[in-house]
Amino acid sequence: MDFKPKLDHKAEAPLYRQLFEQIAQQIRSGQLARGSRLPATREMAGLLGLNRTTVSAAYEILETEGLISGQVGRGSFVTGPAEPAGRVDWNRLLERNETPLASPGAGWGRDLISFAVSRPSRELFPLDEFRATCATVLARQDLADILQLGSPLGYEPLRRYLMEEARRQNVAGPGDDLLITNGCQQALDLIGRVLLRPGDTVAVEDPLYTGLKNLLTGMGAQLCGIPVGPDGMDAAQAERVLERERPRFLVVTSNFQNPTGATLPLAGRRALLDAARRFGVPVIENDAYGELRYSGEPLPSLKQLDESGGTVLLRSFSKISFPGLRVGWAVGPKLLIDRLRHSKEAADLHTDQLSQAVLLEFAESGRLEAHRARMLRAGSERLAATLEACAAHLPAGTRWTRPEGGMNLWVRLPEPLDATELLSRAQREGVTYLPGRYFAVSRLDPGALRLSFAGLAPDEIRAGLAILGRTIRAGLEIAVADFEPSPAMV
Amino acid sequence: MDFKPKLDHKAEAPLYRQLFEQIAQQIRSGQLARGSRLPATREMAGLLGLNRTTVSAAYEILETEGLISGQVGRGSFVTGPAEPAGRVDWNRLLERNETPLASPGAGWGRDLISFAVSRPSRELFPLDEFRATCATVLARQDLADILQLGSPLGYEPLRRYLMEEARRQNVAGPGDDLLITNGCQQALDLIGRVLLRPGDTVAVEDPLYTGLKNLLTGMGAQLCGIPVGPDGMDAAQAERVLERERPRFLVVTSNFQNPTGATLPLAGRRALLDAARRFGVPVIENDAYGELRYSGEPLPSLKQLDESGGTVLLRSFSKISFPGLRVGWAVGPKLLIDRLRHSKEAADLHTDQLSQAVLLEFAESGRLEAHRARMLRAGSERLAATLEACAAHLPAGTRWTRPEGGMNLWVRLPEPLDATELLSRAQREGVTYLPGRYFAVSRLDPGALRLSFAGLAPDEIRAGLAILGRTIRAGLEIAVADFEPSPAMV
Repeated sequence: MDFKPKLDHKAEAPLYRQLFEQIAQQIRSGQLARGSRLPATREMAGLLGLNRTTVSAAYEILETEGLISGQVGRGSFVTGPAEPAGRVDWNRLLERNETPLASPGAGWGRDLISFAVSRPSRELFPLDEFRATCATVLARQDLADILQLGSPLGYEPLRRYLMEEARRQNVAGPGDDLLITNGCQQALDLIGRVLLRPGDTVAVEDPLYTGLKNLLTGMGAQLCGIPVGPDGMDAAQAERVLERERPRFLVVTSNFQNPTGATLPLAGRRALLDAARRFGVPVIENDAYGELRYSGEPLPSLKQLDESGGTVLLRSFSKISFPGLRVGWAVGPKLLIDRLRHSKEAADLHTDQLSQAVLLEFAESGRLEAHRARMLRAGSERLAATLEACAAHLPAGTRWTRPEGGMNLWVRLPEPLDATELLSRAQREGVTYLPGRYFAVSRLDPGALRLSFAGLAPDEIRAGLAILGRTIRAGLEIAVADFEPSPAMV
Repeated sequence: MDFKPKLDHKAEAPLYRQLFEQIAQQIRSGQLARGSRLPATREMAGLLGLNRTTVSAAYEILETEGLISGQVGRGSFVTGPAEPAGRVDWNRLLERNETPLASPGAGWGRDLISFAVSRPSRELFPLDEFRATCATVLARQDLADILQLGSPLGYEPLRRYLMEEARRQNVAGPGDDLLITNGCQQALDLIGRVLLRPGDTVAVEDPLYTGLKNLLTGMGAQLCGIPVGPDGMDAAQAERVLERERPRFLVVTSNFQNPTGATLPLAGRRALLDAARRFGVPVIENDAYGELRYSGEPLPSLKQLDESGGTVLLRSFSKISFPGLRVGWAVGPKLLIDRLRHSKEAADLHTDQLSQAVLLEFAESGRLEAHRARMLRAGSERLAATLEACAAHLPAGTRWTRPEGGMNLWVRLPEPLDATELLSRAQREGVTYLPGRYFAVSRLDPGALRLSFAGLAPDEIRAGLAILGRTIRAGLEIAVADFEPSPAMV
């Protein structure tokens, strides 16, 4: 390799990214030819005075992008970009798609206290009850029906059960139908597929759940963010957006929004529905967390309040029981559900039936409700521990939301701290979280971060927030030091 | 209701469809106002001299389309089209999407011998072995990991197992990776999502599996059909299509194609790969049926033959084990798999992990291979019964393919019979199938039909084909009678 990458230690882009981009550019331009050998990570690190993990990170992305290929004991070789003719040029075929922001969750060291993933604690899974539930299902005479090809609408006994529940709760009216999906995520995907054309505007919360942000932008939608405050989506702002933009649809999380934890109050729900009806905009009510209310009074869902037939309600078993079993559902107007069914069939024929049958039995046997009661006790404890530890450990000037349920809380660091910049320090100290930029639609909020508390025991929460508090304090001291004018500037 | 529908008993469109369309038109134009009552089905049937089921069928579609709503004991009322303002107009929002051809499978009477669904027989499911497999998985210490949120790439132990198998079989090379999907259908969907832009051309087989046809047209792709003969896709024709159209990608079923049962021979595989490489077109090898070879020698997959990195192989557990458990996988270049992973995460986060863990245990315990041996014996018997019964019962002039595996066989009726027209007669006689039009891309082949034999026992197959033979003979007699010149014309 003849060229020597030039890295800027003061640049905003991390060193591994700079290194990746410079090597990638050399390969794409043909200056580093196919088959050339790259220096081993150790060698390259020495050459550039870098940490070896920095070089490894850059090589890993080069490999993922198909530009180099590592061979054990032989080093890394340039394999891309694909030749322009005579074979498939995957780089060109895939170029229109930008890789979305890395998904939150995986990849951190084992020892970190992670506030980064919005999921229930594995310690709370009622394994014996799950086993008993499966045993009942497996002993059934109709087991073969579960194993046979099913309906795109869902496993009929589960669909009937959910539809009856929805009718009983006045969630489903006479014009409604119900479709089973692989969790709320697939319901959002199917809705996008049937309603969106590229370039359409969708009104969403800002900050927004990353999975929805990636989904909608991947479909070519223009996102129009409506600010979410401590009382959920700003209804007055929403009304202005609906009037001005006439978005294709609006997605709103009525309860314990991810990432802020905020809940839309009754007046806000009514105002939002009123505006949506007035401007003919469908409302997609994403309610994955609604069953996890630890305090305060439950509110009627938008779907219950809406008499105009313009709302679709998305719910799921994932957050309340077992996220590894992918079963959710959508309740909405028959006309829409019928289209979603066609789209579901095109997407994957139907949702896995073993899990549908197991979750139905889990619900019908009363075990789901008993488990929910335990989840509510545990969640309540964890939320209380989080709020108390925030008050005890986070320095003055830090602000945070006070959710009444769900799994997430939104923290704003004191000025001038940046949650992304603080993250590597926090990780070195033993704690991790997701910076606000993962969730930003148009309002950059560099001081914001999400704390997902549901997966951690109260002791871990307290320990994690003590570390975070120290990290923030240390960050503030450095920031202040940086701000002190140097003698030459005085 | 003032207007009286005018139905043409000789028209090509069935009467229920004519009735539906005339009422729908009245509602859409506002001539039948919101809130108007429609005559009860019995009354309408009397009014028009129709069978009551014809009227019910029309009302059912009107209800599905959101145009009317039935209320028990009160009759049906006009509910649509939605008002132009003041509420969500679902009709307008959904109008760009045509409802695809009804999915094959459901909806026929219980007593019919159904050759209509390509799926294994439920009687062959090894229920006790499935129960034992589940028991092993449920007893495991790491059960909580299965129930927790997983990776978009798939349940890691299953992914590792499949990757090792793929490497061992020389299906996966050093530049390849593997993604677990909800069956082959979702793999096709994800590939479409990352590679297609609306208006792109995709080269496909003609006739084509309906699920893929609906999927691709739903994505706005232009389908360019390449004829499938008894020896699979016509490679020379494929080469011309690739050169002329430069499609975005080519989808081919190498083994026991659905619907024809045809298998691409080795020379055809090489020719196809050569053309694809020459014109830089990716090949998607859809191989859901490859493991179900009842006779003849297995052929290397396109993926095994391809050294250029332009092929993606799709496989699934569905056809060989339990279709109700939705687990398949894609093996292909890392660069593509990485994009598919992002798309998978957007679509539904990840595939259900309970079924992934169960199928891994089913495979690792050797039960899958034992089950496959039984499936091969049963399939072989069923295929032989089908071919013998075709020879014994179908009248001269009928032609059919002679597959060596899979679940389907393609029949061409003697001229001038139309398989769609013959269907209602066949159903009255007690047998059903899917007419060729469900599978047509551009070549209309009105005399063709698909016989899916794998779900039927040999006795049912013989009885069904005896009925079909009689139905075809009766159809031919009528056709000949229709062709005799009437006295006045002589």
